[in-house]
Amino acid sequence: MTISIDSARALDAKDPLAGYREQFHLPAGHVYLDGNSLGAAPRAVFDEMETAVRDEWAEELIASWSGAGWWMLGEHLGDDIAGLIGAPEGTVVVTDTTTVNIYKALHAAVSVRPGRTRVLTERRGFPTDSYVAEGVVETLPDVGLVLVDVEDEGFLASLDGSVAAVLINHIDYRTASLRDMQRLTDAVHEVGAVVVWDLCHSAGVYPVDLTGCNVDFAVGCTYKFLNGGPGSPAFIHVAERHLDSAVSRLRGWWGHADPFAMEEHYRPIEGIRRYMVGTQPILSMRALTASLDMYRDVDLEAVRTKSMSLTSLFIDLVEQECAGHGLELFSPRDAERRGSQVSFYSENGRPIMAAMAAAKVHGGYRDPGVMRFGFAPLYISHADVWEAVARLKHILDTREWAKPEYAESAIS
Amino acid sequence: MTISIDSARALDAKDPLAGYREQFHLPAGHVYLDGNSLGAAPRAVFDEMETAVRDEWAEELIASWSGAGWWMLGEHLGDDIAGLIGAPEGTVVVTDTTTVNIYKALHAAVSVRPGRTRVLTERRGFPTDSYVAEGVVETLPDVGLVLVDVEDEGFLASLDGSVAAVLINHIDYRTASLRDMQRLTDAVHEVGAVVVWDLCHSAGVYPVDLTGCNVDFAVGCTYKFLNGGPGSPAFIHVAERHLDSAVSRLRGWWGHADPFAMEEHYRPIEGIRRYMVGTQPILSMRALTASLDMYRDVDLEAVRTKSMSLTSLFIDLVEQECAGHGLELFSPRDAERRGSQVSFYSENGRPIMAAMAAAKVHGGYRDPGVMRFGFAPLYISHADVWEAVARLKHILDTREWAKPEYAESAIS
Repeated sequence: MTISIDSARALDAKDPLAGYREQFHLPAGHVYLDGNSLGAAPRAVFDEMETAVRDEWAEELIASWSGAGWWMLGEHLGDDIAGLIGAPEGTVVVTDTTTVNIYKALHAAVSVRPGRTRVLTERRGFPTDSYVAEGVVETLPDVGLVLVDVEDEGFLASLDGSVAAVLINHIDYRTASLRDMQRLTDAVHEVGAVVVWDLCHSAGVYPVDLTGCNVDFAVGCTYKFLNGGPGSPAFIHVAERHLDSAVSRLRGWWGHADPFAMEEHYRPIEGIRRYMVGTQPILSMRALTASLDMYRDVDLEAVRTKSMSLTSLFIDLVEQECAGHGLELFSPRDAERRGSQVSFYSENGRPIMAAMAAAKVHGGYRDPGVMRFGFAPLYISHADVWEAVARLKHILDTREWAKPEYAESAIS
Repeated sequence: MTISIDSARALDAKDPLAGYREQFHLPAGHVYLDGNSLGAAPRAVFDEMETAVRDEWAEELIASWSGAGWWMLGEHLGDDIAGLIGAPEGTVVVTDTTTVNIYKALHAAVSVRPGRTRVLTERRGFPTDSYVAEGVVETLPDVGLVLVDVEDEGFLASLDGSVAAVLINHIDYRTASLRDMQRLTDAVHEVGAVVVWDLCHSAGVYPVDLTGCNVDFAVGCTYKFLNGGPGSPAFIHVAERHLDSAVSRLRGWWGHADPFAMEEHYRPIEGIRRYMVGTQPILSMRALTASLDMYRDVDLEAVRTKSMSLTSLFIDLVEQECAGHGLELFSPRDAERRGSQVSFYSENGRPIMAAMAAAKVHGGYRDPGVMRFGFAPLYISHADVWEAVARLKHILDTREWAKPEYAESAIS
């Protein structure tokens, strides 16, 4: 049966999350399918930043460290995120970047499995993972790094008692493939190793259950589906059972048991705060406050249901409207195995995405040929999906993408 | 000769920097002597943040990574700071926190002096220094950490060919003692070691000359005298001669030679950018833009001259007006050896500073008994100094500080 704009509108008419769209600022006339790279701005952030800059910084100055809660902000935001990823309060803190937090988490993970000789990360994971891991193992003379493919059948068989820690992306940034957190965590535990999950593409858009899956460590960013603004600080989770024992090599005065005692030697504070090391970028954290306040009411199961509906509709529509143009689905066809993103491969992916951006449909592109479309269920509708595919069809049918101005466009 | 309010006003009348005050928002009726902890807000930051949040993020979204220059912002801000600390363009980048940058700098410093067995940091330096250094040497089996007193006569004699790197604070956070960068750097080089200078309390308020002093590495924060806002990202400098050879263990995709090629293995990009590791907190960096734009016209020699004038006046006035109350100067009396801060010791330091804050004079306090007053020459006048001392005198003469509400106040 042919899908029509009316069927898309009918899906929107019964969308329980439809009301969230007006809580975001979306540029008029644009279809923004890049929320998996940089989330849209919640309207509440405008007032939030006014307050943070004018009232807290300019007017109250140093008093805001206690008065406005700056000093504890990373822990409070961390508790908000804990509620979105199935972790207990007090086990998540917002601080630093994802890359820096992976560094802390990998060192901490290895520290709780002394004597083991291998760290595993994904060969085709987000590349910062292996760069960080290389830097970590360089300082550990008896530990080596192995790059693996966690979706390969041989992966589970390759696990053995030599493995200290495994770093896995929950949702792959290129394919949107959703990994089975329970099964992989169990397999890692089976050989006595610990797991670090990277939640960059699942936090805020998938009901992650760290406690249910018995996860050891997790990290993730807050500027994608969590809408914290460009480069808003990342988060790190450490399971309660590792909080006292794990050792992060990266430490500073913010994580000291008595930071204003100015002691000579480091004594870690109790709990997750020891993973904060230096003075945090408060204005960027205050921007994140707006989105996390909104998320308190969000039903993540409804988000996941709508996410699958949006991505499935997109795949169906592209295949209906754009057949014969050589686009190949690069994401799992089974919605249950897919994150909130759909990737298609085309040898002309780069100029097609450039022409799409000129037509005000924004997605992402990664060499070679991978066109990425992210669907943020809080502000993207089924009608948006229809509109995006209509513009894509036009660009393909008219060969608009073949114009010289799109040949070398930089798209991120 | 007695100093009067008229003599303070006379100094202000001939102050070449007086015009900068109106470029800052200062809370009415307050005397803010805590710019060495959190700088005041430049008025330009209000528009700058509006632009960053509404135009760049909310409206232009992902396009701002190139269109608004977010991707290169850390390097551009770094070049601005380079001009303030006597470093060549391309050797400074704004990124992460001071603590994280010390971690990178110490690892990099040790990497260019292989085979040496000692890292030296200050026993009474800012404590994060030794906490970071402990974490670094833990991963280097043949390297040990030694805590030293760089102002002790024996310090220079303790240097020898076993030393790989020395981390020194340019201006001590408690005493405001200004260290002789040229002499200490020469002494470290004399034994073949490298030096890491912490410029947290000198950047923006003292004409630092990294090139003239042949410094190897430097780090510093931007939220004190550089007025970048709460927790604005820090900077790191690496001398050109070490840019290619030094190895930082902390690395990520932002510092890769081809970050969007998504290669498996790390290849550092040329130059200072390799010290950026992950996605930076753009909104906090954009706030820093306002102050650094203003600094382009600032004459740092004039800043230093006024800084010495303000701190000298403060000492003279406290000793004239508050004699007999047991306050002891805790900073160098010689202005040439002092940063832009004056500390006094009093056994009642904590309640006195709490009473001062209630009287709208804001300084800092550090146990035991150290009252810190910072003087930001761009927005503090000699008349402010007079007013601060007048309120201090009142609090001491009336024993206002002895009221119970000031006994346990938290002051940072």
